[in-house]
Amino acid sequence: MSDVRDLLRPDLRGRSPYGAPQLDVAVRLNTNENSYPPPPEVAAAIGAAVTEAATGLNRYPDRDAVALREDLARYLGHGLTTAQVWAANGSNEILQQLLQAFGGPGRTALGFTPSYSMHPLLASATGTGWRDGGREAGFALGAGHAVTQVRHHRPDVVFLCSPNNPTGTALDPEVVEAVLAESHGLVVVDEAYAEFARPGTPSALRLLPGNPRLVVTRTMSKAFGLAGARLGYLAADPEVVEAVQLVRLPYHLSALTQAAARAALAHTDVLLSDVAAVMRQRDRLVDELSALGLEVAPSDANFVLFGGMADSRAVWRSLVDRGVLIRDVGIPGWLRVTAGTPGEIDVFLSALSEALKEYPPS
Amino acid sequence: MSDVRDLLRPDLRGRSPYGAPQLDVAVRLNTNENSYPPPPEVAAAIGAAVTEAATGLNRYPDRDAVALREDLARYLGHGLTTAQVWAANGSNEILQQLLQAFGGPGRTALGFTPSYSMHPLLASATGTGWRDGGREAGFALGAGHAVTQVRHHRPDVVFLCSPNNPTGTALDPEVVEAVLAESHGLVVVDEAYAEFARPGTPSALRLLPGNPRLVVTRTMSKAFGLAGARLGYLAADPEVVEAVQLVRLPYHLSALTQAAARAALAHTDVLLSDVAAVMRQRDRLVDELSALGLEVAPSDANFVLFGGMADSRAVWRSLVDRGVLIRDVGIPGWLRVTAGTPGEIDVFLSALSEALKEYPPS
Repeated sequence: MSDVRDLLRPDLRGRSPYGAPQLDVAVRLNTNENSYPPPPEVAAAIGAAVTEAATGLNRYPDRDAVALREDLARYLGHGLTTAQVWAANGSNEILQQLLQAFGGPGRTALGFTPSYSMHPLLASATGTGWRDGGREAGFALGAGHAVTQVRHHRPDVVFLCSPNNPTGTALDPEVVEAVLAESHGLVVVDEAYAEFARPGTPSALRLLPGNPRLVVTRTMSKAFGLAGARLGYLAADPEVVEAVQLVRLPYHLSALTQAAARAALAHTDVLLSDVAAVMRQRDRLVDELSALGLEVAPSDANFVLFGGMADSRAVWRSLVDRGVLIRDVGIPGWLRVTAGTPGEIDVFLSALSEALKEYPPS
Repeated sequence: MSDVRDLLRPDLRGRSPYGAPQLDVAVRLNTNENSYPPPPEVAAAIGAAVTEAATGLNRYPDRDAVALREDLARYLGHGLTTAQVWAANGSNEILQQLLQAFGGPGRTALGFTPSYSMHPLLASATGTGWRDGGREAGFALGAGHAVTQVRHHRPDVVFLCSPNNPTGTALDPEVVEAVLAESHGLVVVDEAYAEFARPGTPSALRLLPGNPRLVVTRTMSKAFGLAGARLGYLAADPEVVEAVQLVRLPYHLSALTQAAARAALAHTDVLLSDVAAVMRQRDRLVDELSALGLEVAPSDANFVLFGGMADSRAVWRSLVDRGVLIRDVGIPGWLRVTAGTPGEIDVFLSALSEALKEYPPS
C-alpha cells in the first residue's frame, strides 16, 4: 500500500503550508489587517443582510454575482461597468483564476521580488513558470529595470504590486505604462493597499481605457477592514472577465459573502473613515522608526518595512516576548509592521526601543 | 497589441462557462437543490452567528477552520477526528485542492461517466489527464468493470460517486474496496447525496480505518439545504488533510462561512428533518415515471434520471414552456429531475404528462 506522502506531487513534498505564524499575543501587527473593527451599525447591517440571505440558503447563489459586481464598479468609479468587474473569495482566488486562464503549463509569470509572496506560490500551484525580475537598490522598481526584465523573460503574465507588499511603496504609473508597451501578455497590477496611498498617487484604474491586457486587482480585506469576509475583485476589459468565468468554480462566491459585501459597500463612507487614522499611524511609524536610526522604506500602505538590524530575527523574537507580533518577511535585516491603532503603535514602538537596546541597529 | 482572446490558454478558447442554464421559471428542479428553505429558527440562528462574526471581520478568519472541522467530524461520526476532516468553499473546491495536491501535469484521474460533470473539468483546470472508464449497461458500475479500468489506466486519482450524479444510484461498497485494492493512488468517493440514500446503503466512511488513500467528500448544499452557503468537506487520513493544506489558498474559508456552517450544524436535526420528505418525493417520482412508461434509474439521491424519450431535448423545452425547469445532462433520451416539494412534483408530473402527449416515449 502506498504511503500518502508518496502520492503527493513531488514539488510539494517537504513543504509547509503558506501563512504567517499565528501566535496568541496582545498586539497583532503581522498580517496587515485593519485594526479597526466594523463600527456597530455596519456590523449590524452586515448581520441583517446575511440573516435575510439565510432564509434562501437552500438555493445556489447568483453564479455571476451581478449585483455585487455592479456595486463594486460603482465604488471604483473611473466609468467602470459591471462587465469589467469580477469578484472572488479574496484576491488570492482572483489571482489564481487569472493564472488558470492566462498562465499554466508552458507559460510564465514575471514578478519583481520582494513582492507579495503569494504570486510565485500561485504560479507554482497553477503550473505557471515563475520568473523573478528582482528590484533595484532600496527596493525601487523603475520603468527601465522593469522593461529590461520583460524584454528578457517575455512573460505571459506580469505581476506588478502598487503599493508593493512588503516594501509599502506605490509604483510610478509610468512603470505600468512602460510594461504594458513592452509586454505581449497580461499585466496585473495588485492594488490591495491602494486606498492607503499618499495623496497624489494615481491608481492604474485610470489606464484601463484602451489597455485590454491590463488587470487591476483589489480587496475589501484592508481599507474596508473585512479580511474575515474574503472578498477580492478585479477591474479589467470585459473579455478578461469572460475569460476567468471559464475557470472559476461554479457558484464560487457564497450568498453570504455576496450579501455581506454588498451591505458593507452600502456603508463605504463609514468603513473608509478609519483609513486616515491608519495613514497617520503609518506616517508616524516612518518618522519614529527613522528617528530610532533604522532604515525605512517609503510607505503608501497600511504597513511599514524597516531595516538596518544586524539580527532582525532576534528583534522579531524579542518583540514576541514583549507581546507584539510583527512579520519577518524573509529579508535579512528587515521587518514589516502593520499600522495599527495609536495604542498598538505605542506598545510596538516602546517594545521595539527595548528590543533594540538588546540588539542595536547595525 | 494582442487581443485578450489570443492570450487565453488554447484549451479554453471557444468554451462557455460551466453551469446549468438559469431560467426564471416557477418550478426549478434542475440543480438538485433542496426545495425546503432553512426553517425560520435556523435562518435566525445562522443570522445571529454571522452578526456576531461581523463584529470581528477586520481580522482574518481561522486559517485552519478548526472549530468547524471539529463540528463536521462530530456530525460524520465513525470515530472521526478534526485532523481527518477538511472544509472548503463547496466540494468543488475540495476536489480542486485534491487534484492540485495529488494530480496535476503528468498525472491522470479516472472517472466513470456519466458521473458528476465537474470531475473532468476540474482535472482539466488542474492540468490532470482525464481517463474515462465508462459504465456498464443501465449506468451500472460493478467491481469487475471498475477494477479492469483501474488496471488499464493506472490512474493517480480515481473518482467514484455514490450516490452517482446524474444517475442517482449508490455504489456497492465492494466496488470501493476493489478499487482501493487494485489502485496505487488516491480513491475519492464523492458522497454529496449520501444522506438521501435508501435504508441499508453504507457510506464509504466506514472504510476509512486502514485505508489512508481513501477520501470521502461531502457537502452541506444538499441534505442540509445550504447550497447558498458553499460548504464542502472531506474525511480522510490526517496526511491527506495535511496535503491539501499545502495547496489551499490562505484564509480560503471566510469567517462568515465558518460561523454560518457551525450554526447550521448546531441545528442538524431540524435541517435534516426534511430529508425524509424529499426521499418520499424521490420514490414517488421513480414510481410515477415508471408508470408513464419511462425508463428510470434506481435512485439513492434527491433526484431521478429517467429515459426512454425519443426527443428528450423537445420534452425539456416543452417543460420549460410549462414553467418547469429540469436538467438535460447530455445523455440522449434521458433527463434528470430534482425531488422537490410535493407541490413542485405535482406540477412537474402534470407538465410531463402533457409534454409526453406531444413527444411520446419511444
